[in-house]
Amino acid sequence: MNEQAFIEALRLLPAHPAARGLADDCAVIEIGSETLVLTHDMLVEGTHYLPEADIADVAWKLVATNLSDLAAKGAEPLGVLIGHMLGRDDERFIVGLNEVLAHYQVPLLGGDTVAGTGTRTHGLTAIGRATCTPVPARSGAQPGDVLWLVGKVGAAMLGFEALRDGTGADHSAYSRPLALLKEGQALAPLAHAMMDVSDGLLLDAFRMAEASEVTLAIDGAQVPVAAPERRLACLTWGDDYALLAALPHGTQPPCNAARIGTVEPRGFAPLFVDGEPVLNAAGLGYSH
Amino acid sequence: MNEQAFIEALRLLPAHPAARGLADDCAVIEIGSETLVLTHDMLVEGTHYLPEADIADVAWKLVATNLSDLAAKGAEPLGVLIGHMLGRDDERFIVGLNEVLAHYQVPLLGGDTVAGTGTRTHGLTAIGRATCTPVPARSGAQPGDVLWLVGKVGAAMLGFEALRDGTGADHSAYSRPLALLKEGQALAPLAHAMMDVSDGLLLDAFRMAEASEVTLAIDGAQVPVAAPERRLACLTWGDDYALLAALPHGTQPPCNAARIGTVEPRGFAPLFVDGEPVLNAAGLGYSH
Repeated sequence: MNEQAFIEALRLLPAHPAARGLADDCAVIEIGSETLVLTHDMLVEGTHYLPEADIADVAWKLVATNLSDLAAKGAEPLGVLIGHMLGRDDERFIVGLNEVLAHYQVPLLGGDTVAGTGTRTHGLTAIGRATCTPVPARSGAQPGDVLWLVGKVGAAMLGFEALRDGTGADHSAYSRPLALLKEGQALAPLAHAMMDVSDGLLLDAFRMAEASEVTLAIDGAQVPVAAPERRLACLTWGDDYALLAALPHGTQPPCNAARIGTVEPRGFAPLFVDGEPVLNAAGLGYSH
Repeated sequence: MNEQAFIEALRLLPAHPAARGLADDCAVIEIGSETLVLTHDMLVEGTHYLPEADIADVAWKLVATNLSDLAAKGAEPLGVLIGHMLGRDDERFIVGLNEVLAHYQVPLLGGDTVAGTGTRTHGLTAIGRATCTPVPARSGAQPGDVLWLVGKVGAAMLGFEALRDGTGADHSAYSRPLALLKEGQALAPLAHAMMDVSDGLLLDAFRMAEASEVTLAIDGAQVPVAAPERRLACLTWGDDYALLAALPHGTQPPCNAARIGTVEPRGFAPLFVDGEPVLNAAGLGYSH
């Protein structure tokens, strides 16, 4: 069974019509007067990181990518639980874990460790509290909204290539991405829709368009990219953890952000890039 | 690095003195007027289940063992997030997942799916709300308390053997354990200490004694066992998910429970079984 089929089958379970927290989105639950946001993401050796990667970087990325999911909801992290398969360089894993948790001032609440062989997998659950309600979803974009991007795309691509090719260039954008928690919290009360850009700007924009049943029109030249001479690659590479937000027309973002497009009524294509229609998601970015 | 060393190293992280939710215990956090209980446990092919096991049973056990952690805190489940490595018989996994979630009326909130090769691992995070505070911990047993066991031990052992040997006998106690949520909620307001018996009664009692800095004295003959002719094996085998609770002297448990011992001031051994001192945990049960 492939991932899509598995998720579709899960969504058909009668008791769980609202399991929107599968795949990339977060779960949102209300308890008492609070709204909780939960996410669980995994990293797999060979799929999400190079087998020779510094495991400290893997620990960083594991936490940062989950916190990025919370950022897209404007949530404030309460803590993380780790699912750790013991393996090489566990001491380095703990170093990286400590660094990322200290950076974000997020406590390690608990988790589990197991022995295993073969492909190493790392799981992390992050829990946060919403700082505003309703919590923005990827499904709320409305015609007339303006699309904003916080952060730039393509830097992770350059970092990955530096690591892969051993050039010695800075690879921190790939190996130690940052979760834009403050920016997410600032945007959440204003945004009709928001998501983090983990799998490539165009693919994630396509997903927002599909979820919101609108058409997104992106002006590629306005997107902040790390490598202007490779703009299309930057627009389709993932791992940058920028934030994509749809704000009502006339609303200025309360943080640094680039205006990269507009939200239109649903046309024949979910996405237009520089006026060209994109009819399906194949090849737009990184599906995993 | 082995598991114990890894956990000890994590506990030394300056920001996380209270990461008691590592290994078998739950994390407890307060938010607003509510107290949340979180746990994340993993199952590993070959370690926690037979490679030829019905994957539907693995899904059941993955959920039930995490709910059992919540039961030991008297918590009411709010939902689960799953970390799923795709593999053989995913359709069966979904069948078992649906059955266990329906049985406990617990929603699937979200999670992640990944492709992987080699040893298959399954992760699950369960979140619950405490039904009483303070939430009972394994560290609260006090001299003078009486030790009670809800459920019996040894049935999972017989189930495992039936599966392993292909005898055709009932193996549901091993493959589809039950989480004693109602019993945990009934006991929590009364218990000085409580935990679920996942790794063997004697090992878990030893852990309660160490955490509480007391001595537990267990009368082996009073422990409800599934195989009286193999009493010691029943006391040391895991996977039964009974509840072990220390109640104040004179307090009657509000559910079916067996009185199996007493809590004494800390003596030279953490645990006495039928008057014999047990000085260390080696060989007492299943450490993983």
